[in-house]
Amino acid sequence: MEFSSKLLESAVHEVSQLPGIGKRTALRLVLHLLRRPQDQTLRLSETLRTLRTEAKHCKRCYNISDSDICDICSNPKRSETILCVVEDIRDVMAIESTSQYQGLYHVLGGKISPMDGVGPQELNISTLVARVKKGDIRELIFALSSTVEGDTTNFYIYRQIEGIDLKISTIARGISVGDELEYADEVTLGRSILHRVPFESSLKSL
Amino acid sequence: MEFSSKLLESAVHEVSQLPGIGKRTALRLVLHLLRRPQDQTLRLSETLRTLRTEAKHCKRCYNISDSDICDICSNPKRSETILCVVEDIRDVMAIESTSQYQGLYHVLGGKISPMDGVGPQELNISTLVARVKKGDIRELIFALSSTVEGDTTNFYIYRQIEGIDLKISTIARGISVGDELEYADEVTLGRSILHRVPFESSLKSL
Repeated sequence: MEFSSKLLESAVHEVSQLPGIGKRTALRLVLHLLRRPQDQTLRLSETLRTLRTEAKHCKRCYNISDSDICDICSNPKRSETILCVVEDIRDVMAIESTSQYQGLYHVLGGKISPMDGVGPQELNISTLVARVKKGDIRELIFALSSTVEGDTTNFYIYRQIEGIDLKISTIARGISVGDELEYADEVTLGRSILHRVPFESSLKSL
Repeated sequence: MEFSSKLLESAVHEVSQLPGIGKRTALRLVLHLLRRPQDQTLRLSETLRTLRTEAKHCKRCYNISDSDICDICSNPKRSETILCVVEDIRDVMAIESTSQYQGLYHVLGGKISPMDGVGPQELNISTLVARVKKGDIRELIFALSSTVEGDTTNFYIYRQIEGIDLKISTIARGISVGDELEYADEVTLGRSILHRVPFESSLKSL
C-alpha cells in the first residue's frame, strides 16, 4: 500500500494489529473515522485509553472490574458458598444473562493447552485452589468448554482439591432447548440420555 | 450483554460504532487489547487521536495529507497538465501502486447517487471544474467505477466542462491480465473487442 500520509499509515498499521483485521479492513475503518465527526474518533480514542489504564481484574475472581473487587463479588445478595469456574469473562457475561446463577465466579483466563504454551502457571488456578481450601465454598461448578483442553483443566483442578469436603459438578451437556433430536450429534444425544433428569425436576425450569 | 464493568461497556459500545463491527466482535477486540501490553492500546488510542486532529484534506486534490498540499501535488516531478478523477483516496493508493501514472489527482469523495442522498454539491466537483477552467490541464482521465452512479458522475462533470479545449479519457475496461477469455463476463469481453488496441502499442506495456 502506498500511503500519501504518514498519519494515515501509522493509524492503519495500529488498527491492523487487532486480531482478524487486515490492512484493507483497517484502512476502511480509519477512512470511516475520517469521514465521521471528529468527536466520535476522540471518544473512541479516549475510552480505549481509559479502559486500558483504569480497568482492573477483580482481586477475588479475576473478572474485569472498575474497582479492586468486582460488582458480583461485592454483592451481598450472592451466595458465597457456591463457585463457578469459567475460562473467560465472556462466559461470566453469558451465565449472568441467564439470571439462573446466584453464586460467585472464578475466571481462569484460559484453559491448559500445552500446544499453545499455556500451562497451569499461566492460569488463575493456584488462587482458585486457595479459595477452595479456605473452606467457605460448598459447591464448585466447572463451566469450561467440553474440549480436550477443557477436560484436562477440569481434571487438573480436581486433582489439586481432591479430598476436600466439597460438592463438585459440571454444567449439563445435552440437546439445546428447541432443537430437533434427529439433527443432534450422537455424542451430545448420548450424554443427554446418560444424564437424563427426573421428569418432575425438568418441569421446575419451565 | 451484561457487563460487569462500565469502562468495558463503553469501550465495547464505541468500537461497535465502526462499520461491520457488531457488539460481539467489539468485545473480542477490546478483550484482546486488555490481554496485550498496555502500550499497544495507548499507541492505538494516540495514533487515532493524532490522525483525526492533524490529518487534513489536500487543498488542491482532496487527498488525505499531513500538510495543506499533499506530497503528490507538491512533487515537482509530476506532470501538472494531466489530472485523474477518482472517487476515493483508496483509488489514489491503488493507481500509485502501479507506478504507471505521473500526473495529478482529484478526489471527488464519492459519486453522484440520489438514492443515497449524494448530489453534486456533496462532492468536490465545483473545485474540479475550477481547476480545469484555470487552463493548465491538457488531459482529464475519469477513473470512477463503471456503475450507473460512476457513469452519471462522469457525465455530469463532462457537461460542466464541455467546450473547454481538453482531452478527456476514461481508464480502459477489458479482460484482466492473466484471465481466461471463457470465464469473462460478456459486457467486459465486448468492450475489450470494441476498444481493441494496436498490437504494437500493447507490446510497449510488457
